[in-house]
Parts: sequence; C-alpha cells; structure tokens
Amino acid sequence: MEDKLFSYGTVDNEIIKLLNDAIGANNVSRDDEKLETYSHDEVPSSTYDRPYKAEVLVFPESTEHVSSIIKIASTKHIPVTPRGAGTGLSGGALPAYGGIVMSFEKMNKILELDKDNLTITVEPGVVTAEISRLAAANNLLYAGDPCSGDASFIGGNIAENAGGNKVIKYGATSAQILALEVVLADGSVTWFGGKRRKDVTGLDFVHLLSGSEGILAVVTKAVLKLLPLPRYSVDILAAFKDVESAIAFVPRIITEASMVPASIEFLDRKAMKLAEDYLHTKVPAGEAGAALIIQLEDNEQEQIEKQYETIGKLSQEHGAYEVYIADTRSTKDRIWQARKSVPEAVSFFYSRYTKEDFVVPTNRVPDLLKLMRDTCGGHSLEWVAYGHVGDGNMHCTVFGPETDDWHDVLVQVQHEMYPKILELGGTLSGEHGIGFKRKSYMKYFLDKEQIELIKRVKLAFDPLNILNPGKLIDWE
Amino acid sequence: MEDKLFSYGTVDNEIIKLLNDAIGANNVSRDDEKLETYSHDEVPSSTYDRPYKAEVLVFPESTEHVSSIIKIASTKHIPVTPRGAGTGLSGGALPAYGGIVMSFEKMNKILELDKDNLTITVEPGVVTAEISRLAAANNLLYAGDPCSGDASFIGGNIAENAGGNKVIKYGATSAQILALEVVLADGSVTWFGGKRRKDVTGLDFVHLLSGSEGILAVVTKAVLKLLPLPRYSVDILAAFKDVESAIAFVPRIITEASMVPASIEFLDRKAMKLAEDYLHTKVPAGEAGAALIIQLEDNEQEQIEKQYETIGKLSQEHGAYEVYIADTRSTKDRIWQARKSVPEAVSFFYSRYTKEDFVVPTNRVPDLLKLMRDTCGGHSLEWVAYGHVGDGNMHCTVFGPETDDWHDVLVQVQHEMYPKILELGGTLSGEHGIGFKRKSYMKYFLDKEQIELIKRVKLAFDPLNILNPGKLIDWE
Repeated sequence: MEDKLFSYGTVDNEIIKLLNDAIGANNVSRDDEKLETYSHDEVPSSTYDRPYKAEVLVFPESTEHVSSIIKIASTKHIPVTPRGAGTGLSGGALPAYGGIVMSFEKMNKILELDKDNLTITVEPGVVTAEISRLAAANNLLYAGDPCSGDASFIGGNIAENAGGNKVIKYGATSAQILALEVVLADGSVTWFGGKRRKDVTGLDFVHLLSGSEGILAVVTKAVLKLLPLPRYSVDILAAFKDVESAIAFVPRIITEASMVPASIEFLDRKAMKLAEDYLHTKVPAGEAGAALIIQLEDNEQEQIEKQYETIGKLSQEHGAYEVYIADTRSTKDRIWQARKSVPEAVSFFYSRYTKEDFVVPTNRVPDLLKLMRDTCGGHSLEWVAYGHVGDGNMHCTVFGPETDDWHDVLVQVQHEMYPKILELGGTLSGEHGIGFKRKSYMKYFLDKEQIELIKRVKLAFDPLNILNPGKLIDWE
Repeated sequence: MEDKLFSYGTVDNEIIKLLNDAIGANNVSRDDEKLETYSHDEVPSSTYDRPYKAEVLVFPESTEHVSSIIKIASTKHIPVTPRGAGTGLSGGALPAYGGIVMSFEKMNKILELDKDNLTITVEPGVVTAEISRLAAANNLLYAGDPCSGDASFIGGNIAENAGGNKVIKYGATSAQILALEVVLADGSVTWFGGKRRKDVTGLDFVHLLSGSEGILAVVTKAVLKLLPLPRYSVDILAAFKDVESAIAFVPRIITEASMVPASIEFLDRKAMKLAEDYLHTKVPAGEAGAALIIQLEDNEQEQIEKQYETIGKLSQEHGAYEVYIADTRSTKDRIWQARKSVPEAVSFFYSRYTKEDFVVPTNRVPDLLKLMRDTCGGHSLEWVAYGHVGDGNMHCTVFGPETDDWHDVLVQVQHEMYPKILELGGTLSGEHGIGFKRKSYMKYFLDKEQIELIKRVKLAFDPLNILNPGKLIDWE
C-alpha cells in the first residue's frame, strides 16, 4: 500500500455545471481572489513547501448540498477539502491537490438547545464562541474552549479535536461530542451516535471522526454535551523564580489540593517579555522566571475562596514568590492578557519561526524544556515556551534567523528533537493537528503498523481518497 | 461484502504443539471440563441458539505470549476469542467458531501507579475493583465503575466499554483510557496513545478499540486516568408515588441544582418488590411507586451538606414524598442494597427472561417505560425497569412464561419494540454490548452504510477475521 497513489480529475466546465445545478450558481465560485483567500490558514505560507490553490469554492447551505457535492466529486474523482473559519495551524484546510474547497460558512445555524437532555445541536459553520454564549445565557456550559474560539468554527474544532485552556478538567472537543451527522465518501448521509450519554451499539465512529481532519467523512451536524455552568470562577497567577519550580508545582495542585482546576497554563520569562513588548505595558509577574495561571470554578462563593486560599498557600510552599488572585472581569483579563497575546506577539515580531505542539507526560515537561534549551542552544536559536502545562502540551516556538539557511536548520533541529520527544513519552501534536505541516514527521512518532492501519481505515471510509487528501498521512 | 464468509482451520495436534512450544504446555489446556467452563458468560446458555465450545484454552503470561499465539492463529486461520472474567452479558467471550479461547487470568498485574502523571498501568486480567482500591489507598479515584467491578477484569471492561453507576459524571470505561498496548491480527505489537492528556498524532484508535469487543486487536496493557479522590460522598434515596414524577425530576437535578451527581439510579415498584423478596427484608422506600438513588461527592463536609439539602428540597418540590440521606457505610449500603440485588433477584426467581440494555435521550425515559408497558401488556408479560436513568440507560427486563413458545413470543416482542426505541432516539445497547446476543438486531438500529463501515474497519484491522469472529456484526 506504501506506494499507492491516487489520480484525480480536474475541475472543468462540466463539473462546474454539475455543481451549479446541484447547489445553485450563487453557492459556487471561481473568483480568483476568493480562490486565493480560501487556500490559506493561520500559518504563514512560507511554512509550506509551495502555495496551494483551490480550483473551485462551494458554499453548501444544507446536508443535501454537501451530499450532492460529494456525489459529484466521487463520480469524477475530484478532491474535496472541507474548510471552517481557516484558523487552523497545520494546513488541514489547504487544498493539497486542488479540486473543491467546501466552506461551511453558510451552514452556521444553532439548530437546537435541548435543556432536558443537556445537548446543543449545531451546523459545522457555527463560531465556537456562539455556542458557549448561548449555553451560558441558559446557565449551561459548552466545555470545548479552543484559544481561537472567537473565530473558529465548531466543524474545524471537531476535525482537529481542538484543545485549548480547559482540557485538563473537561477534555478536548472530542469529549464534548455525542453525535455526528456525516456525509460519507460516496455522498450517503448517516448519523453516528445520538443524544445518548453512552452507546455500545457498533464501533465508536463518533470519536474516531473527531480529530480525523476530514479524511474519513464530512461532518454536517453535531450534537454536543452541555454541563451546568459553574457560578463562580477565579484566576490565580503564581510567579516563580524559575521554570523548574513552576513546573514542579503542577502535579502538586491536583494531588495535594485534591482538585482539578479548569486551567493550568504556563509562561516562561521570554513569553512574558514578548507579551510586554507587544502590549506596550507591564504584565503581572512580568519579571518572574516563569508563571502559572490556574483557573478554579465552583458553585459557592465561600467554597471558591477556600480553594484559592489553599492553592495560594500551596504554591508559596512550593516556591511561588508572589500570587495574584483575580475574581473580577478586569482583574481576570489582566492576568490572562500576557498568556493570550503570546501567539500574536510571536507573529508580530518574527517572520521565521516554527510553533511546535508537543505533548508529553506532565512530569516530563521539565525534560522537554531542557531538550528545547539544549537543542536550540546548540544552534544559537532563540525559543519560547508557553501553553497548556496541565495537559503536558507546550507550544514551544523556535525562532529562525533572517538567513537563507533557516529551512535547513529547522529540519536539522526537528530531526534532532523528535526522537528525543518520543523518548520522553511525548508525541508530535496535542491539538494543532498533523494536516499538511507535520505529516512527513509522523514516521518519527508512529510505527509502521500504525501508519499502515491509518491508511487502511482511511481507505475503508474513502476508497478513492477524495476527502481532504494529502493530510495526516504521507502516501508517497 | 455482505455474503463474504470466512474459513477456519481446526485445532489439531500440530497447533497444540506450536502453542506448547510458544507459551509452555502449562499455559495450554484441552481439559474437557475446563473447555466447558471457559465457553460461557453470565447470560443463561438458553439465551443463545446453541452451545459454543472452545477447542483449546491458552493462558498467556505476557504480551510476547499473546503475540506468539496470534501469530500461530493468523498463520493457521484459527479464531481467537479473548476472555476476561466471564462476567459479560452479551456473549462477547463465547467462542462462536470454536478455536482458541485466550484467558487473561495470568496477566493480572498492576504494573505502575504514577502519581505525578495521575495514571495507572495495568494488565488486562486485573480485577477492576483492585484498580479502584489501589487508587483509593493513594487518595486517587479510578472513575470506571461497572456494577460487576468486584469480579470483572479491566480487559473485559475495555472490550465492552463497560458503564456502571458513575457514567453521568465520569463517562464510561472509554473515557478513562489514555493508552493501550495491543497485539494486532498479524501478531505485531504496538501502542495506541500514551501518558498524554491529549493527542492528535494520527487517528484516535484508543477510543475506537474501547467497546470494539475484541474484534480489532487484543489489548495487552492499558494506561488509565486517575483523578483526585473526593473526600466525602452521600447517597440520597428519593421515594416518588409514581414512575412519571421520579423520571421528570431527573433533568431538574442537573439544570436546577446546577450539579452533576456521581450517580442517578432508578428502581420501579416491581424492582423493589423483587429485591425485598430476594433479600427477605423491607428496603427503604420499598412501597414507593418508584425511587431514585442520587450520589453526591465533594471535598468539603459542609459543602456536601448544602448539596444534599438542595437536592432533598428540590426533590420534594418535584413530588418526592420521602427522602433518605445516607452518609455512613451502613446507611449507604442500606440505600444501595435494593438496587444492587435486582439482577441477582431476577436470575433467582426467573429462568426465562430477556434483560434489555436500551439507552434513550434522558427525557424519553418515560416514553421508553410506556413502550415497555404497552408492548408487554399486549402479550400479558411481566416486566421490570431499573438502572442508570441519569444516562437514559435502563435495564428493562421482560419475563417469559414457562411455556414452549417463549422464544417465539420474545422475538415478536423485540420486533415490535426495537423500531420504536429507534423512534425515541434510542439504541440497542448502552453498556452490555452487542456480542453474540444482539448482533442480529443491529440492522434495526444502524443503517446499511454504517454496518458496511464496521465490516470494512474490521477487515482493515483483521483481514482474516480471526479476532473474536462472530461478534458485533452479522456477516451472513
């Protein structure tokens, strides 16, 4: 199977006519500027080996539209790349083999909020934050919380199994999904799962699809779990003199305080410096060697006070030299502003960098950071570490010099680091996905049996390889 | 693919020799009495169309043993049926095509409790309750809690995605799994997942395997998540005059009290009567029309007092005429004894019955019970309802008369009920599995595209169909 390649048709006038007839000409576009816009994601184009471009854009308004498009694509062997808001970080929405880019921006309705069953049913083009807002207005919580939530579509979150700041308590997007309506590679429509809290009737295709980057089927509706909205939350910023003491405290939060916070986020000194330079302001603990942001939630005011006192005291026992507590909107914003502005600061100040998305066992984070320091040091490269330390998921970002050999150096750095990440019990991506960006590195982390199984399962769902081809696995 | 059948070799002396050489003769048995014992599960044999019997039993002591056995089976086309403690309820461990039954009773070690990463690594033959006990001794919680936990093996829990009393808060077994070491159908060994709280490097085979009833691969190690152990718990028994008011209260617990209990269990009048007759004692609320058992957990004594007062008051507002609170071992046992003894009472008093495992959206439970009443009434059959109402998963059990046409009546009842369960948004099994018992009913609940996908994914993992053949899907 290793050398199996696929051949695709091109989008000619016949196909455009078929698409126009099926979904209406107003939902089909070949406008050159639009084709360009819909062929990128949030990663600088320079990350990829060459530009990619859709041949035609389609904007389905219904499951029937999606089904019709896929039937045409299936008959004519045209690649179909589903696309959410384009906030992805691994090229998952790039049309690797041209063909059809299918934007879900017109399938943007929240179809039902079911308070009795604590579910919300949505189309894939709904912005994630809208789901959270509607839930909150009904005193309920949608627990998926990707950092891009104000812009990203829920369909993209599902395709990537998006993580974010609350995975430690609630799990990633996958853990929020009860059911998916999907269009299969032959255009047929089916539902996996249902409004059911458990289900062993068949194989668990709901969770197989989550994070499958659109290579198995196209999601057209999702039923998501809701929870009671916690009444109170506080954010704690604990400043440590160095990275080691900050990281060493992380597992103690859970084991010694016997509580699972909603978030445990990490910033190193460089990350805070970047944020300060970008925001043109001092941030709390900006001078610290490293900082943790810990979010607690509870239904009782006095309970949460007890909890933050416990965590505050414990953090000081474990080396925090200063602890800030935020329980109002403005103090919370102040605590989070550094953390939230790091990604923007990175892309503002640097044009050459690689944002890695390693995830390691939580207690190996210090080893991960040592590995970063040693490897980057050996190449005289700057780097920064920040992210979801409670999950062991760190967005280690390596900055490249403005020299022509950056790409070669980068490949060398990755080649040195990746086998060592594996030795730490870590892996390539915790939440950003493999997509186009990381597929050639999969062989460092998965053995050949697993890569073979991914290929076989892909072909079991999509024998012609028309659904988002060129992602997740390397066929060549 | 519909008519594809598989041919198998028989276990002859050559195969016995190969097995003896590979894992030692002391780990291979053809003792007739043993073969008989290892060819049953907890369901009365009369449930199945005929007896099934293993040709040989193997007792691997290591992953290498499992790999050797599967290599032999693969080469010689011999079916392999993995077996846990035999507490299954759907024939998942029955050797449908004879061949090798692989008992995991010798792979029964807890390999590691990792407090820093909050994980426990186990072999498949560990009794589930041992995992919970070791975790609890370290102030940690293993949140998987099947009702059979004192006897069942964790390997069986994983194969069936076992549920139990705490799914509403913590999810079923699947939600507890971080990583699986597996032997694939060709005997090769690989790991899916790792000690990582999130991972999008590849497809999510960890959760695909959970609940796959051993048809895709054989699990040889599992890394399970642990949580802080809640310091306090109370059990509340709320007595209602009828089923309707009890069920109507269930979603109110979560939405009005803004809390997710650890358990919400249900007993109808008949279930309590059965328990009383079996236990030869009065049970609390034994005279009620229906009862709910609600378990709350918290880290603070006064907090949990507030919570049970809230739930108690709320239940009375919603029609509970009596509320018992249990916060000591003996009062808790008294509250749970009726619920826990129903399955035993059923098999003690009746020889002919079918225990269904329907799961419906929580707010459709009243419709499910009405459907049971109407359908059973139409055939003058007795029935009882109890189970995990918080998940919408009810063990509706229909009792058969001591007449020869019971099997015909049963088929008629199922034929009437199943399409209506589907109309309620429900499905065939929430936690007991499909196995052998329910596979011919899958066509009522899954469309042909999904059944086809299950077959294709099965063959992607196991092209010769040697791993637990005859389960989950009907090839004929």
